[in-house]
Amino acid sequence: MNTDNLFEKEGPIYLGSQLKKKNCSIGIVGVNYDGTTCYKPGTRFGPNAIRLASQCLETFCPKSGKDLDEIKYFDFGSVFLDHRDTISVIDKVKLATQYILINNLKPLILGGEHSITSGSIQALVDKYPNLILIQLDAHADLRNSYQNNRFSHACTIQRCTDILRDNKVFQIGIRSGTKEEFEIMNKRDQLIEFNPGDNGMLLKQKLEPFKDFPIYLTIDLDWFDPSMVPGTGTPEPGGLFWHDFETIIKKLDDFKVIGGDIVELSPDIDPSGVSSIVAAKVARSLIITLDKN
Amino acid sequence: MNTDNLFEKEGPIYLGSQLKKKNCSIGIVGVNYDGTTCYKPGTRFGPNAIRLASQCLETFCPKSGKDLDEIKYFDFGSVFLDHRDTISVIDKVKLATQYILINNLKPLILGGEHSITSGSIQALVDKYPNLILIQLDAHADLRNSYQNNRFSHACTIQRCTDILRDNKVFQIGIRSGTKEEFEIMNKRDQLIEFNPGDNGMLLKQKLEPFKDFPIYLTIDLDWFDPSMVPGTGTPEPGGLFWHDFETIIKKLDDFKVIGGDIVELSPDIDPSGVSSIVAAKVARSLIITLDKN
Amino acid sequence: MNTDNLFEKEGPIYLGSQLKKKNCSIGIVGVNYDGTTCYKPGTRFGPNAIRLASQCLETFCPKSGKDLDEIKYFDFGSVFLDHRDTISVIDKVKLATQYILINNLKPLILGGEHSITSGSIQALVDKYPNLILIQLDAHADLRNSYQNNRFSHACTIQRCTDILRDNKVFQIGIRSGTKEEFEIMNKRDQLIEFNPGDNGMLLKQKLEPFKDFPIYLTIDLDWFDPSMVPGTGTPEPGGLFWHDFETIIKKLDDFKVIGGDIVELSPDIDPSGVSSIVAAKVARSLIITLDKN
Amino acid sequence: MNTDNLFEKEGPIYLGSQLKKKNCSIGIVGVNYDGTTCYKPGTRFGPNAIRLASQCLETFCPKSGKDLDEIKYFDFGSVFLDHRDTISVIDKVKLATQYILINNLKPLILGGEHSITSGSIQALVDKYPNLILIQLDAHADLRNSYQNNRFSHACTIQRCTDILRDNKVFQIGIRSGTKEEFEIMNKRDQLIEFNPGDNGMLLKQKLEPFKDFPIYLTIDLDWFDPSMVPGTGTPEPGGLFWHDFETIIKKLDDFKVIGGDIVELSPDIDPSGVSSIVAAKVARSLIITLDKN
Amino acid sequence: MNTDNLFEKEGPIYLGSQLKKKNCSIGIVGVNYDGTTCYKPGTRFGPNAIRLASQCLETFCPKSGKDLDEIKYFDFGSVFLDHRDTISVIDKVKLATQYILINNLKPLILGGEHSITSGSIQALVDKYPNLILIQLDAHADLRNSYQNNRFSHACTIQRCTDILRDNKVFQIGIRSGTKEEFEIMNKRDQLIEFNPGDNGMLLKQKLEPFKDFPIYLTIDLDWFDPSMVPGTGTPEPGGLFWHDFETIIKKLDDFKVIGGDIVELSPDIDPSGVSSIVAAKVARSLIITLDKN
Amino acid sequence: MNTDNLFEKEGPIYLGSQLKKKNCSIGIVGVNYDGTTCYKPGTRFGPNAIRLASQCLETFCPKSGKDLDEIKYFDFGSVFLDHRDTISVIDKVKLATQYILINNLKPLILGGEHSITSGSIQALVDKYPNLILIQLDAHADLRNSYQNNRFSHACTIQRCTDILRDNKVFQIGIRSGTKEEFEIMNKRDQLIEFNPGDNGMLLKQKLEPFKDFPIYLTIDLDWFDPSMVPGTGTPEPGGLFWHDFETIIKKLDDFKVIGGDIVELSPDIDPSGVSSIVAAKVARSLIITLDKN
Repeated sequence: MNTDNLFEKEGPIYLGSQLKKKNCSIGIVGVNYDGTTCYKPGTRFGPNAIRLASQCLETFCPKSGKDLDEIKYFDFGSVFLDHRDTISVIDKVKLATQYILINNLKPLILGGEHSITSGSIQALVDKYPNLILIQLDAHADLRNSYQNNRFSHACTIQRCTDILRDNKVFQIGIRSGTKEEFEIMNKRDQLIEFNPGDNGMLLKQKLEPFKDFPIYLTIDLDWFDPSMVPGTGTPEPGGLFWHDFETIIKKLDDFKVIGGDIVELSPDIDPSGVSSIVAAKVARSLIITLDKN
Repeated sequence: MNTDNLFEKEGPIYLGSQLKKKNCSIGIVGVNYDGTTCYKPGTRFGPNAIRLASQCLETFCPKSGKDLDEIKYFDFGSVFLDHRDTISVIDKVKLATQYILINNLKPLILGGEHSITSGSIQALVDKYPNLILIQLDAHADLRNSYQNNRFSHACTIQRCTDILRDNKVFQIGIRSGTKEEFEIMNKRDQLIEFNPGDNGMLLKQKLEPFKDFPIYLTIDLDWFDPSMVPGTGTPEPGGLFWHDFETIIKKLDDFKVIGGDIVELSPDIDPSGVSSIVAAKVARSLIITLDKN
Repeated sequence: MNTDNLFEKEGPIYLGSQLKKKNCSIGIVGVNYDGTTCYKPGTRFGPNAIRLASQCLETFCPKSGKDLDEIKYFDFGSVFLDHRDTISVIDKVKLATQYILINNLKPLILGGEHSITSGSIQALVDKYPNLILIQLDAHADLRNSYQNNRFSHACTIQRCTDILRDNKVFQIGIRSGTKEEFEIMNKRDQLIEFNPGDNGMLLKQKLEPFKDFPIYLTIDLDWFDPSMVPGTGTPEPGGLFWHDFETIIKKLDDFKVIGGDIVELSPDIDPSGVSSIVAAKVARSLIITLDKN
Repeated sequence: MNTDNLFEKEGPIYLGSQLKKKNCSIGIVGVNYDGTTCYKPGTRFGPNAIRLASQCLETFCPKSGKDLDEIKYFDFGSVFLDHRDTISVIDKVKLATQYILINNLKPLILGGEHSITSGSIQALVDKYPNLILIQLDAHADLRNSYQNNRFSHACTIQRCTDILRDNKVFQIGIRSGTKEEFEIMNKRDQLIEFNPGDNGMLLKQKLEPFKDFPIYLTIDLDWFDPSMVPGTGTPEPGGLFWHDFETIIKKLDDFKVIGGDIVELSPDIDPSGVSSIVAAKVARSLIITLDKN
Repeated sequence: MNTDNLFEKEGPIYLGSQLKKKNCSIGIVGVNYDGTTCYKPGTRFGPNAIRLASQCLETFCPKSGKDLDEIKYFDFGSVFLDHRDTISVIDKVKLATQYILINNLKPLILGGEHSITSGSIQALVDKYPNLILIQLDAHADLRNSYQNNRFSHACTIQRCTDILRDNKVFQIGIRSGTKEEFEIMNKRDQLIEFNPGDNGMLLKQKLEPFKDFPIYLTIDLDWFDPSMVPGTGTPEPGGLFWHDFETIIKKLDDFKVIGGDIVELSPDIDPSGVSSIVAAKVARSLIITLDKN
Repeated sequence: MNTDNLFEKEGPIYLGSQLKKKNCSIGIVGVNYDGTTCYKPGTRFGPNAIRLASQCLETFCPKSGKDLDEIKYFDFGSVFLDHRDTISVIDKVKLATQYILINNLKPLILGGEHSITSGSIQALVDKYPNLILIQLDAHADLRNSYQNNRFSHACTIQRCTDILRDNKVFQIGIRSGTKEEFEIMNKRDQLIEFNPGDNGMLLKQKLEPFKDFPIYLTIDLDWFDPSMVPGTGTPEPGGLFWHDFETIIKKLDDFKVIGGDIVELSPDIDPSGVSSIVAAKVARSLIITLDKN
């Protein structure tokens, strides 16, 4: 695999990243892309904002009792994008994920918009044919095409479904979509309702049969209530809160999460910078979760 | 009725508005006024901000199962205001509401500050003598006069009470006011306490006797917690959340809402634009509620 | 020509626009597109920001002595974009410009990013084979391809040159580009140097031979110094000021400007809103200039 | 004169203000009013923003060689406004100015919007019957009525003219108005053209005959280019710069300035805070100018 | 005690502050210091932001039924800081607190960063040897040294502990710290867990044995969720909400709160100004609580 | 020299930086420090903001005809600061500069506040005993002590003078200071007046005798007018513009610039990001100037 120029070298890296990838368990990569964003663009600045904001976090996570200092992970920087059409970008994400897997690392992708998820899914499903996809999101993302683009971020879970075929997809807390998208979620029985304060038992029960399956967790930050993450391109009132995220991530302790992404942070929309800090803390949780498995 | 120049023609219109008012059930109108705002002004830009933000919403509402595509409503634009003193503006709102009623439409007013409500109440009470007023608000708005203006937005519910006489007024979740205002609310038994997470049964029970009464719903966006709607002129910490709004709007399903307003959005105070999106989504809910009845 | 759905109907319109296109001399159209923007996106919100900001302008222009009240122009709204790839968008701009020309109007295009200019040039050159292009810009925009996209906004003047063939192009005040781009400008003798406070005599002299030629004026707002227009995606320090713009527009009085565009306003980057007001005032000047000819 | 409750006591005061008014030569007063602002409101926060920003200035002014430490002035705080209609506010400004004059101080009024100027003019003309008015402004403010309010900030110089009768008014650098307003300025021969970099000789020459006349200087901050003062309600591109202000203030050295105001700062529009600092530095210049005479 | 120049005189004061300290029960003082802030600085502007924002509050508090109008308190302004190293500042806070106590007032300190708390604790423990410290905070602040500064705001509770020796410290709702800090809190049994919606019974039970002890309440505003208070230097997702604050303040009704501080507001980080309003409302609650005892 | 941990490794680097320092001619280093900032803090974020903003620049500079691609420079990252008191930080800057010199590179320091300059001067004067200092700044920075700190950024040129002894210091365009500071500048004949549009001949003439002297150029970004660089901690109206900077940098072509710094960028104060872009473009000019010599 020719990986010259696969990554940009000039950006910042995530707090506590090793400077060599040897002996690491997790590989972090950014994707500075927002080409299909339908309302407010700007997620291209998401990966570097997460990295810069990570500097204000403690390495210790009191909820899990784990410390980033005890985990080895390597931040490759952001994928170098020489083409800007959606398919080329998704191909690059696939290539980067393959490279991470070849290096025996678990991928953690920082977006950028949600369309990129199908790239990592393509790479992962080769290694993990029985891959399960779990999505935290405000939007269903199940359109077959949007603005005449089948690879729009509004279609990303449908594109992943095309790849995953009969593998299970779970969608948690979706609160926005077309009537058709809600019908699809119901028909496929893949929408797990989740309201603020829920205890996560329904999620646990639904996941039970998949105890030994590899899981990919895609986190669209607009899953959170816009009061927590205003810095996203299509904020949707009525979302979830930090304690809900902790409930879910705790439930996943007993499962085998082998990769994930954090997408749709658009940092400049939130001048307070809090959205980027939330994203950086989500990344800390995901690093800990990935390391456990 | 001479309605030449009643509306401005240069602004945007709400998502999915018909281009002719024929066959519509709802008439939308904006009021670009903030003349009595006591702390931070700027609600004059509220109506157009709601309209522009509406473009990022889905037309489908999963909570109600309804789609805006199935409803016909007409956005007249904003009332043309040639005078800027409070009484003249309220008169214009009255005139615009009358015009909407004459066209057999239910009025949905977009503010602008809260003082405008007494204008639509004046017009509506002629058609619906037994009109009930329900207010979602942080503030009681029951002062008799404020800064020597009896028509200040701090007096608007008192002015409505003057018009409604013995008709019932309900005030939901009020958390700020003078000692006198709280005494009035208690004396008139019209304050319905509502805390985050409440199930709305108290509201339902209080409303029960008014099953067949026409209801006007005035929504001051500062009812929401400032974390959700920072873009308002007098934000008051300790407010309600989106799920609480859904609880209330669901309870109103069994009642006859025949008009309403959404006021006090001051979009420039919130550079993230989330406040405007919340307001636009409240408008979507209100359109669906108005169409049901 | 099937023009159903050519324009969106829900947005605002420019100050003083007629409500019917009959008897107008100018047709305004917006293009909400920023798909190839290389640094900060957001010009998709440019056209509506210009329209809303126009409300704070006087209709009278003391420099020219003209009043918008004496001119009839029609704002069609923004082009409806069902595809978001650059070529499709440019085709739509071409179509919209053709429609404007068929209606016997002079086109004034509001961007949106600069890539759209080649669309209007395509339409205009059919009607005006000897069309001259004048560009106010910080950047040369003469790359043959950028990020593997030949239609990137960084290539737009080169694309126009492809269409215009041997017709003259003038580039005024360019201060950023690659070494190759500066060599091209020099070779083609089309860069007119312009520093703050210049009197415009060089411009006049260069234009002299083209007295009777139809001129298209494309104004990239980053031509202005970023202190005046911070709200643009690739601001370049060292730009020009309002008085310089007035100098140039005055010099064009004696020439035949038959169309133009105002591009690269990215309103959300400038929370003060001043950038949008500058753009709206540039539009006022351009309306007056177009009407003269 | 009953002056109980004439001033608010809770706000900040201007840098270096004495704590007693005894022995002072200048009296500063704020007017937190923006009731007739036609585009973006917010000048009610101007006076306190100027005071807080003054803390970052040096007391020494190298251009004049003067130091605020050598001047005694007293900041009364802002006028307490119990009524918010324009006429009541102007009356309060008149009352406050009279109080300042009775205390043998020269008034320096901090706005607030421009409508307040006629209040101080009313008070001053009683003391100085041959008062001359000099206005720095982007707008002519010569309308007779605006939005049906004869006391709108768009009419303020016309209202002052009503009071001053045949006394001379000079308007410097006006660049926006209706055709009628420009005709009036020309007819009355009171517009002094002033472009960036001008040397002020025309001003000096025009003022020459009024060497011994008392002068009131009203400074609307939108006279400055919006790049310098974006924080104002109706910014007008094409304005003047700091060096131009210095040119003018220097020319006034030989004249008898006995009062002045600084109006139309709307601090929240400019999140950088620079507009407030410009206003505070203008105030420093004006204090020095007032003290000289 | 030489108290000349102990306080700055030019800033604003808290809503309803008396103009003389005679007969008051509470003394308010600001500390404009942020010298050890590790991430985003700016808390130096906190005290004046709280005072200015207090103007938009009602004096009446419906939860407690109390009105500020019935309480006498005096705002001294901010401590004059001639040195800016941490130890000097803490000494000045100690001096100011002593001065307040000498005047028989209860101190309410407005920060500024958290490091200042040890200054007031030093002064108070002399008067109240059995002083109890209660901390609302996101961070443990128990490091012994941070960035080689033992008086960093990251060490403030450890410094207070040094002073308080065996007196009890309670830390409520801490959610961030090093592994060592969490071990210390556990070992000392001083961390009171508190999640959103908790009823406060655990707190009450823990406090029970200290019914008659004097209590100092230090409120780091980052205890609140960043959605409520984005305007703070090290926001930590997963915080508490206004209703939680009310729960706690209500539980303290039966205890003897004799002083307190409100720290870490960094107003410019939150352009909406809501963070300052939350802080001002917290101050209103604390004034009422202090007055009760 | 033990240089372990001299630099942070997690931040971004300047556009086009080599990945190894071998064969480079210039060494870039950041100093994330703002400990003595007297008004608005935040320059600690300056270095990384410059690096991130550099990504939007062209590598080619049309004024000089040079391209960054032809120059080799290495960005070490920011100095790791374990102590935060001014003297320790200045010592670290000295150490870092020494390390750069040992590697045979010319230092380019990115601030951070201005106090750091004396650190690099200390290191440089050992290598270049006849070092000349040229300062672009709004402020004289000649106080002997400020807020009881002799190393405050308000004293930095005085501290440099202490080190440089009788070596020449030139101060260009200073427009703010105490009376004493202006007297010192005059007495030492080191203030070179510079107004917008000046041609730089005076500067050239003053520098003439120092043709073969090594020059250090310290650029405080508040030298620019605040309209160009609002993102600085103590903006001073009446500054210079980009064309003035180009005039000066061009005049320095004939002189021997062997090091420099760019200080006082406080990026979060300017939400448009333009200030950071100006700073990044100044850095591009300085890299080219350093490479020439």
